[in-house]
Amino acid sequence: MPSGEAMSVREHQKRRRRERIFRAAIELFRRQGFQATTASEIAKAAHVSRGTFFNYYPYKEAVLLDYGHALLSTLREMALRRLAQGEEPLEVLRFVFQMLSEGTKAEKDLVLPLLYELLNPDPLRAKAAFEALPLGDLVAEILKPLRDRGVIRSDLSLERMGRTLADLYFLSALRWAAYTPHRDLDQEIERSLRIALEGILVRP
Amino acid sequence: MPSGEAMSVREHQKRRRRERIFRAAIELFRRQGFQATTASEIAKAAHVSRGTFFNYYPYKEAVLLDYGHALLSTLREMALRRLAQGEEPLEVLRFVFQMLSEGTKAEKDLVLPLLYELLNPDPLRAKAAFEALPLGDLVAEILKPLRDRGVIRSDLSLERMGRTLADLYFLSALRWAAYTPHRDLDQEIERSLRIALEGILVRP
Repeated sequence: MPSGEAMSVREHQKRRRRERIFRAAIELFRRQGFQATTASEIAKAAHVSRGTFFNYYPYKEAVLLDYGHALLSTLREMALRRLAQGEEPLEVLRFVFQMLSEGTKAEKDLVLPLLYELLNPDPLRAKAAFEALPLGDLVAEILKPLRDRGVIRSDLSLERMGRTLADLYFLSALRWAAYTPHRDLDQEIERSLRIALEGILVRP
Repeated sequence: MPSGEAMSVREHQKRRRRERIFRAAIELFRRQGFQATTASEIAKAAHVSRGTFFNYYPYKEAVLLDYGHALLSTLREMALRRLAQGEEPLEVLRFVFQMLSEGTKAEKDLVLPLLYELLNPDPLRAKAAFEALPLGDLVAEILKPLRDRGVIRSDLSLERMGRTLADLYFLSALRWAAYTPHRDLDQEIERSLRIALEGILVRP
């Protein structure tokens, strides 16, 4: 039986190997496209066997979940820092949606299959994607101080409002990438945000 | 060369054959499930060859597009009749979303693959689905008299508002079917509608 220390070395090796596979995969996706890259090519570039690749990532899209999770974690840290510095939550929310828009435009060929993964007909895969990409939770976290100040409505849960805003980003990005890449995604997302924040009915 | 009359008979035969295939397919989908039903089984039940089936419906999901299109056309007629009878447009909108919710619950196993078709990664298939299911256009049509009366905001297009409401139905239904079939879909959809109509920010 391995000692605690030996286990820790093994865990460390596993983490390093996962990172190596991850970096090799992302590099290949960026260079030759996500669809065109095979698991065998990733394994070769990362100096592991094809079987080892699938031990770490049971399907190719799982690499994108790690990618999206890392981006979203960075975005969350940036947003929380802004909140801590006293920036208005609605401004922070706009910043988050602008960053999402920038990231989507810059890495369209990675973000698109990542977003499709959220709607994978296999419920286990879709669940893994939702858990890796907690955008709704981040939005709810940003909205929370506004709830406490009475700026946002109290008859719906923060969770539901976060999820709705996340959904609207998500469908705006998918529709933009698939049909209207000539349009300005920033504007598309900003308008969705306005509908969700202010509503369709005229305010008195 | 066939005369005009002969062409018309041929068109008539084609339409009847399409209807026969459609009815046989829907009956099989309801009886044994959409995924479990093969094109060969549909062809056999409709007394046509497998090749003939694919002449009318290039993929199995295309049958569902006809199904959804017919439901949406009926719903549109009901909505326009209510508007013509003087019912308040916002009430008609609520009626439409309630009917969508009822239809989704009653025929979950047909509606779910139909909704996924809207996000098919093949852009031609997704486009065919969007064209067969113009829910956003129907919502825009219902909202139009409210725009004329100044009840809804004028800084966003009716088309965008219609699309946003259609998106929210669509994602509520997908999430409900995949994750929370124990919840009340009516309520889920009604809450999405409230967010889109009234917004997240408190009204003065």
